[in-house]
Amino acid sequence: MPTSRRVVLAARPDGIPQARHFAVAEAEVPDLKEGEILVRNQFLSVEPAMRGWVSAVANYSQPVGIGAVMRSFASGEVVASRHPGFVPGEKVTGMFGWQELATVPASAVSRKVTETDLPLSASLGVLGLNGLTAYFALLDVGAPRPGDTVVVSTAAGSVGSAVGQIARLMGCRTVAIAGGPDKVRQCVEDFGYDAAIDYKAGEDLATALAAAAPRGVDVYFDNTSGPVSDTVLAQLAIGARVVLCGTASVPSWDPWPTGPRPERHLLVKRARMAGFIVFDYAARYGEALPRLASWIREGRLRYAEDILDGIEAAPDAIAGLYRGENRGKRLIRLHD
Amino acid sequence: MPTSRRVVLAARPDGIPQARHFAVAEAEVPDLKEGEILVRNQFLSVEPAMRGWVSAVANYSQPVGIGAVMRSFASGEVVASRHPGFVPGEKVTGMFGWQELATVPASAVSRKVTETDLPLSASLGVLGLNGLTAYFALLDVGAPRPGDTVVVSTAAGSVGSAVGQIARLMGCRTVAIAGGPDKVRQCVEDFGYDAAIDYKAGEDLATALAAAAPRGVDVYFDNTSGPVSDTVLAQLAIGARVVLCGTASVPSWDPWPTGPRPERHLLVKRARMAGFIVFDYAARYGEALPRLASWIREGRLRYAEDILDGIEAAPDAIAGLYRGENRGKRLIRLHD
Repeated sequence: MPTSRRVVLAARPDGIPQARHFAVAEAEVPDLKEGEILVRNQFLSVEPAMRGWVSAVANYSQPVGIGAVMRSFASGEVVASRHPGFVPGEKVTGMFGWQELATVPASAVSRKVTETDLPLSASLGVLGLNGLTAYFALLDVGAPRPGDTVVVSTAAGSVGSAVGQIARLMGCRTVAIAGGPDKVRQCVEDFGYDAAIDYKAGEDLATALAAAAPRGVDVYFDNTSGPVSDTVLAQLAIGARVVLCGTASVPSWDPWPTGPRPERHLLVKRARMAGFIVFDYAARYGEALPRLASWIREGRLRYAEDILDGIEAAPDAIAGLYRGENRGKRLIRLHD
Repeated sequence: MPTSRRVVLAARPDGIPQARHFAVAEAEVPDLKEGEILVRNQFLSVEPAMRGWVSAVANYSQPVGIGAVMRSFASGEVVASRHPGFVPGEKVTGMFGWQELATVPASAVSRKVTETDLPLSASLGVLGLNGLTAYFALLDVGAPRPGDTVVVSTAAGSVGSAVGQIARLMGCRTVAIAGGPDKVRQCVEDFGYDAAIDYKAGEDLATALAAAAPRGVDVYFDNTSGPVSDTVLAQLAIGARVVLCGTASVPSWDPWPTGPRPERHLLVKRARMAGFIVFDYAARYGEALPRLASWIREGRLRYAEDILDGIEAAPDAIAGLYRGENRGKRLIRLHD
């Protein structure tokens, strides 16, 4: 019976999961049951949301159990199938976990990856939930119009970088907010933002934003919440749309954090602020994916990846995200 | 030359305008110039927004000057006209000021009051900006659907009472939040709310709201901001809409008040929060007014008025609103 290496949750973290909370183990791969497929993972995803998946606090889903394989998105190739919808050789992406070989029901597959001319890794980022989030949250909730000024927080991130580029495709002026000179340079040079502000540079963010968005902010794509967002909300244009996509700057919601009340900004500017969760758009993914793929092929949608090699890199990979060490979508590559 | 009594701003208030900040004076009524009309006011409006109109702090409009007639909406009858669009005997409502006789350009008229079978006073409330605000803010921003639970703060107020009744006409379940047993009784008995909560009663508001809105809040019509709203935001249903219409519970925005951050509620519930200012809908008033008038005639839209008699009552009337002494739209009646 073949064996497979896997990363299991060894201890429940109280906060950001660190390398010590995981263990790499080897296990036998069970025989396929009816309706299951065997996937040989090529790329494992690493993302901030994993912090919530291992947290004991109620979240969108049940926490990963102690001793269980770490939940994750992954992409790979079907190597055996007892499901009529899949045949060996097909590329798939889905919830396959941090492991080399995944025995999963067909329901674990998010989709078959048919854009085989593009790198399979993209299926975990710009052609996965990151790109889908950017596409639907910006276009459906942000409702950008040509000439709008679109401001993006964590603008160099996997979602933010796609938001900025799609907004430019819509004819918008794009303003990045990112932390540090490397990310700011990446925003302008790689992702085509019209302006980029380093909120860590010590310059007054309100002043820098007023210079970059002199007519006010028509769309604010908010991945952070916190003081950066408070500053942007004070500079909304009339009729502005604020897309709430993440709250990365808030370390904890227990105790619940306070901040300047946004009501008056929203009232005076007749602006709206709306939350977005990509899974609500699952029925429409097929609308977005071919467009995202076309833009990539045309060179109009670029993306950055931060690839770590080998399953041994996984246990520390989430903590590394929170240390800010990645410069693109973080992935674990298991083989070429 | 005829004379007219008027209320002028005598001193600039620092906060809520009190009786001492106004003076009643008598002045000659000037001859009409080309394009002007002379209106004999029957009702003067008194509203919370007047606090902003006399404030030195920048607001939507220039502050009323010291010695100038207090700005206000009023309704009355055209008694002389040098404008081809108006003839004596017509009823009009507009920005005529706190005075008995108003010499104004035709542009001061908001509209001719054609629903002459209904009391003229209604043109300053349920058939004026209060009713228009309720109609457009609820229907356009709140987007209620039959079966929704609609929660209204300051639910017995001139706007809130209309919101609750229009929401019921839409097939919604309506929950009032109001202060004190009188207003709570008025909400249920006069305005037909399905449930009413006295937020001043000492009972835990979160518990009372959970009982009144067990499936969560689909639409929150927010006239208050502050702790009441913070409690409602924690009980939004998925896809909820929050209409920001006023911030009556916030005594000052300088210094800017803080409160629990709403972002996570809006994100997790995929809810939206949007500001509303009725003047943006001026082009569509003609859509709402005949419907509001029909609902009044049919007994399906009730309204409360708090009428003070004589221009001498005006100087203290705004302060009285903030003392909470009115039980309906406050008006000054100058004659029958």
